[in-house]
Amino acid sequence: MMDEPLLLTPGPLTTSKTTKEAMLSDWGSRSSKFIKLTADICRKLEALAGVGSVSPKHTCVPIQGSGTFVVEAAIDTLVPRDSKVLVLINGAYGRRIAKICEINGRDCKILETAENIPPAVDHVAECLKRDPDITHVAAVHCETTSGILNPIENIARVVAEAGRLFIIDAMSSFGALPLNLCEIPCAAVVASSNKCLEGVPGVGFAIIDNNVLARSGGNATSLSLDLFDQWQNMKKTGQWRFTPPTHVLAALQQALLEHEAEGGVEGRGRRYQENCQTLIKGMKRLGFRTYLPGHLQTPVIVTFYSPNDNKFNFEIFYDKLLGRGFEIYPGKLTRENSFRMGCIGHLNKLDMENAVEAVAAVMLEMK
Amino acid sequence: MMDEPLLLTPGPLTTSKTTKEAMLSDWGSRSSKFIKLTADICRKLEALAGVGSVSPKHTCVPIQGSGTFVVEAAIDTLVPRDSKVLVLINGAYGRRIAKICEINGRDCKILETAENIPPAVDHVAECLKRDPDITHVAAVHCETTSGILNPIENIARVVAEAGRLFIIDAMSSFGALPLNLCEIPCAAVVASSNKCLEGVPGVGFAIIDNNVLARSGGNATSLSLDLFDQWQNMKKTGQWRFTPPTHVLAALQQALLEHEAEGGVEGRGRRYQENCQTLIKGMKRLGFRTYLPGHLQTPVIVTFYSPNDNKFNFEIFYDKLLGRGFEIYPGKLTRENSFRMGCIGHLNKLDMENAVEAVAAVMLEMK
Repeated sequence: MMDEPLLLTPGPLTTSKTTKEAMLSDWGSRSSKFIKLTADICRKLEALAGVGSVSPKHTCVPIQGSGTFVVEAAIDTLVPRDSKVLVLINGAYGRRIAKICEINGRDCKILETAENIPPAVDHVAECLKRDPDITHVAAVHCETTSGILNPIENIARVVAEAGRLFIIDAMSSFGALPLNLCEIPCAAVVASSNKCLEGVPGVGFAIIDNNVLARSGGNATSLSLDLFDQWQNMKKTGQWRFTPPTHVLAALQQALLEHEAEGGVEGRGRRYQENCQTLIKGMKRLGFRTYLPGHLQTPVIVTFYSPNDNKFNFEIFYDKLLGRGFEIYPGKLTRENSFRMGCIGHLNKLDMENAVEAVAAVMLEMK
Repeated sequence: MMDEPLLLTPGPLTTSKTTKEAMLSDWGSRSSKFIKLTADICRKLEALAGVGSVSPKHTCVPIQGSGTFVVEAAIDTLVPRDSKVLVLINGAYGRRIAKICEINGRDCKILETAENIPPAVDHVAECLKRDPDITHVAAVHCETTSGILNPIENIARVVAEAGRLFIIDAMSSFGALPLNLCEIPCAAVVASSNKCLEGVPGVGFAIIDNNVLARSGGNATSLSLDLFDQWQNMKKTGQWRFTPPTHVLAALQQALLEHEAEGGVEGRGRRYQENCQTLIKGMKRLGFRTYLPGHLQTPVIVTFYSPNDNKFNFEIFYDKLLGRGFEIYPGKLTRENSFRMGCIGHLNKLDMENAVEAVAAVMLEMK
């Protein structure tokens, strides 16, 4: 266990020892203890999204599976079958939402920008004005493909002004970038356990406007992914409809305690910011260039251009870095040769400095 | 952690300490180490189902989520949209398959028997003869609602003779009751990590006939639950399409090693048989009656009639047993007052004897 690499990836991440140790118990999923654990997690997640505990306007509905499962669950549950979704795309995760709409049989229109360009708020407004059939807009907060920050607050404003519903995929930003549902009008925010919350993978959640949720019965074309049905059952019994990943949830509860102890979204965001700056500064010193300009760069994951050199082979680079204890990620850009290094997870400034040192040593070996 | 109750439930179960300790590492889900872990698990699961390693006729496709997720994934992926499924029902899990068909938009016909009566093979044959539109048959091997054993081998035979495809929900039997795909003609068997395999919950799998799988592209109405797409991606890259529950899978690998060390399906089945007999013998001594006759009783879970006594209150019974370290399960029968006690998980004869003793003490307190 001591040899395991630090994960500089967009998840699964390096988690704390204590978070993993929370998985050393078995839980009956129908016990009052576990019902309390589920409720505790949901209330904490709502609080992180700025949902008040007095007459809350949104409700957290958790669901088994990966991030994509909860994105699909949100689309399938919240978008009526005859509705139309405008999907804002500047990377693989936006494209995935469009694919989900297509497979789920929901009409969808795409507004795509280059992978280093955020959607223009004016274009969104224009699009909504021109196409009255559009009922919903879906966008990614931090597009993990590049690490780009999309202007979610401004988009939310124009969507609300146009009287449409907004669904935010906050998978890789939730818990580290501020997102206050008291200020941002939106139908739902979806995220998962194993990104900035630093839990282990296996569960996702949607924090949904209560009015939208109450009207969403009968929309879903899937039983497992029906968030309305899940919500109804949880309201009635406090229990999951189908066996939950009990150990994953115990880990998430511990991870949320550690998130709180670090100072919540602000504290977590500060550490990631420091990780990110340390990484970028160090990598630039070694001659690497970032794909995104600073003002669009989230402290979640950084895309670096691959060196313009025939001797650079990503597979070798990856293997050699892994040998030195750092697991990085291939690029996901459509057009450019790149690789990615994550700044999230149980990592600190020193880890990032060591990662840069390892890159320096590997580059020396490779040339 | 020492105070946690033994789980006499149909899952999540009590698992071994070593299985839980396998979750104390973090894994990058794209690493070659994790790709190997996934392949290792799939090959081991195939072997448990009697799939040969030389020119195997079936392939294991794993999927995130609970057992219901993989049942739905199998229906949605393997049943073309214009096909018709005959669902054999004698409990809640059969009913759930019919509900999945309905929500997934697959035509379905129901053949239902009482919860203590297995489907009659002649009726199945008759049904298939009378309705040529039926293309698939789905049935539950051990219906956890009661613990009843359904005659899966004989059903498989008549389904094959009628030229239809058979999907087996072996959720609560896989790994403890024999099921050899070399001898049982079937399109797919589905099960999950956290029943007789004694892993932790969070992942399911379908072991699918290669010819059926190869023809199943484009059937699914869900992206997340599309087993064809999952299989294609795994064949190409060895990787999961979407973040897998890495820790749950590490636990499953360890659980499979322990399953093997116990003597595989035979050894595991023998221990559960002993657990079950010890439990039934002890409970009968205390005056409890089983819902099922011996020849229909699987060694997975036992349904007992609640005592015919006004002083018996299940909630109090449950709480008092929990106070003595045993978590049991409410009944799930439609008509009778009952409760259930599971025999599966990391439990042995002594645990069952202690459970019976605890029941005796609680009954004494209650009367």
